[in-house]
Amino acid sequence: MNRVCDIVGIKYPIFQGAMAWIADHSLVAAVSNAGGLGIIAAGNAPVEWVEAEIKKCRQKTDKPFGVNVMLLSPYANEVAELIAKEQVAVVTTGAGNPSKYMELWQSQGIKVVPVVASVALAKRMEKYGADAVIAEGTEAGGHIGEVSTMVLIPQVVDALNIPVIAAGGIGDGRGFAASLMLGAEAVQVGTRFLLAKECTVHQNYKDKIITASDLDAVATGRSTGHPVRGIRNKMTREFLKLEKEGTPLEELEQLGSGALRAAVKDGDVINGSVMSGQIAGMLTKEQTAQEIINDYITELATISKKELINF
Amino acid sequence: MNRVCDIVGIKYPIFQGAMAWIADHSLVAAVSNAGGLGIIAAGNAPVEWVEAEIKKCRQKTDKPFGVNVMLLSPYANEVAELIAKEQVAVVTTGAGNPSKYMELWQSQGIKVVPVVASVALAKRMEKYGADAVIAEGTEAGGHIGEVSTMVLIPQVVDALNIPVIAAGGIGDGRGFAASLMLGAEAVQVGTRFLLAKECTVHQNYKDKIITASDLDAVATGRSTGHPVRGIRNKMTREFLKLEKEGTPLEELEQLGSGALRAAVKDGDVINGSVMSGQIAGMLTKEQTAQEIINDYITELATISKKELINF
Repeated sequence: MNRVCDIVGIKYPIFQGAMAWIADHSLVAAVSNAGGLGIIAAGNAPVEWVEAEIKKCRQKTDKPFGVNVMLLSPYANEVAELIAKEQVAVVTTGAGNPSKYMELWQSQGIKVVPVVASVALAKRMEKYGADAVIAEGTEAGGHIGEVSTMVLIPQVVDALNIPVIAAGGIGDGRGFAASLMLGAEAVQVGTRFLLAKECTVHQNYKDKIITASDLDAVATGRSTGHPVRGIRNKMTREFLKLEKEGTPLEELEQLGSGALRAAVKDGDVINGSVMSGQIAGMLTKEQTAQEIINDYITELATISKKELINF
Repeated sequence: MNRVCDIVGIKYPIFQGAMAWIADHSLVAAVSNAGGLGIIAAGNAPVEWVEAEIKKCRQKTDKPFGVNVMLLSPYANEVAELIAKEQVAVVTTGAGNPSKYMELWQSQGIKVVPVVASVALAKRMEKYGADAVIAEGTEAGGHIGEVSTMVLIPQVVDALNIPVIAAGGIGDGRGFAASLMLGAEAVQVGTRFLLAKECTVHQNYKDKIITASDLDAVATGRSTGHPVRGIRNKMTREFLKLEKEGTPLEELEQLGSGALRAAVKDGDVINGSVMSGQIAGMLTKEQTAQEIINDYITELATISKKELINF
């Protein structure tokens, strides 16, 4: 009995991380059809876009999928209401505290699974009635916290009764097995799904992930209090240089603005923001979402037979 | 058959991380007597101190122990020669490339185990004839790299044939099990041994570790290219503020100088550097080195029976 699979109604305890500008119905339906949980990233998109994606997703799959609400979006309220109206199976949330929407969502039978990067926020989410939490380590891509997956998961597991889904750094079946050993009951995978054939991100972006080494996914913006992880390029070098020189926050924000869209849609991987987790260094090829999920499951099955006490 | 236990001649595949100013014969002998590998931290100490510690350690244990050479120490050459002369069982190295000493050490039957934070350095170490490597994730304490344990270990394991010892973020049997799942064959634990009763670090330092939350072990100095992780206090706040203001490197270095000694020896945990890994948030009590090692082994034995495929 796996509590996450039971709560969410999926076959395999694998969530697809919601990547803004990237996780649309094409990737989401493919992941859900493969037995995982696909999640549409609402990001800063207007509510009409999110509504259209939900409808297109339903045309492609009858399996459960989720929507991620970025709480700092100017459209957060409208998207939150849309999710309730559409009775999407699962909602995940990033960038803040979703408690003001939780009653609305849960009244519609929607499962609420916030992303957290600390024990304190995880505890607050359980108190507000979250069905589970995604505890995300600093090795993840995009907006990140400071504590690593290895350290965060056991502490969140010890502090909560609801299930914990591990995110950040889970590149293959070994990371999946490690997460379960740490006490997680499921995993969320973002970066590896960038290389799903059904993922519509620009090919230049995929190529940057494929060619990245272990040291190439760097964090920018730590001095601003809002760090973001992506593949090292002209943009990250410039950003880090300006940060080091003590450049005011407003100037830094201007540099970042529109950079993700430029990389995702236009393939500008030089001046754009190629958000990625540290596992980019492990990834070498495109696969279908089904193949990716099958790899995780098959590798987990093999590794789970490993004799840990050999001394 | 555990390759690390075989190579080093220990009962349990647990190394004690070499913490400068802290890991002296008292802690080292206790860890080795408990079945792990204690390691004396030579740090910047003069060769006479290291020699005396080796002799005192031999009075307290007939088990194998190691010495860690800090390659940037002004005494690195003398310490390297002392280790050869004394035929210490194991040498670990930090802060650089130990290849120029490897032939000397190995001619004396000494096992050489460099600490690495990237795949490239790990590969170079294997090429130069290292017996194993310690791959250390960014969640570790003291001087750190950027890649997390979860992401670093599988990549180093895939790149090498020699055994990999995981370090960084291994706070209990769950982290031990996770490390083995990632492909490591042993673990190195630093921060938890700060709380060993045999560890002579100032009580104020131990108390800072015990009371730390999950978010309290912060990295300073990232903008200088030499990040250090320790418990948040007046010193780290001041350092981060100056970094953000673009303070010149020399001024920053002056602030850090002597700060570790002040915390370790004088118990100045306000202006001193309380180096620690992120697992400080998990730690709540002092134990003997034997109790710490027993906990890791007992928990691993329990967790290794866990059914990973429950879906």
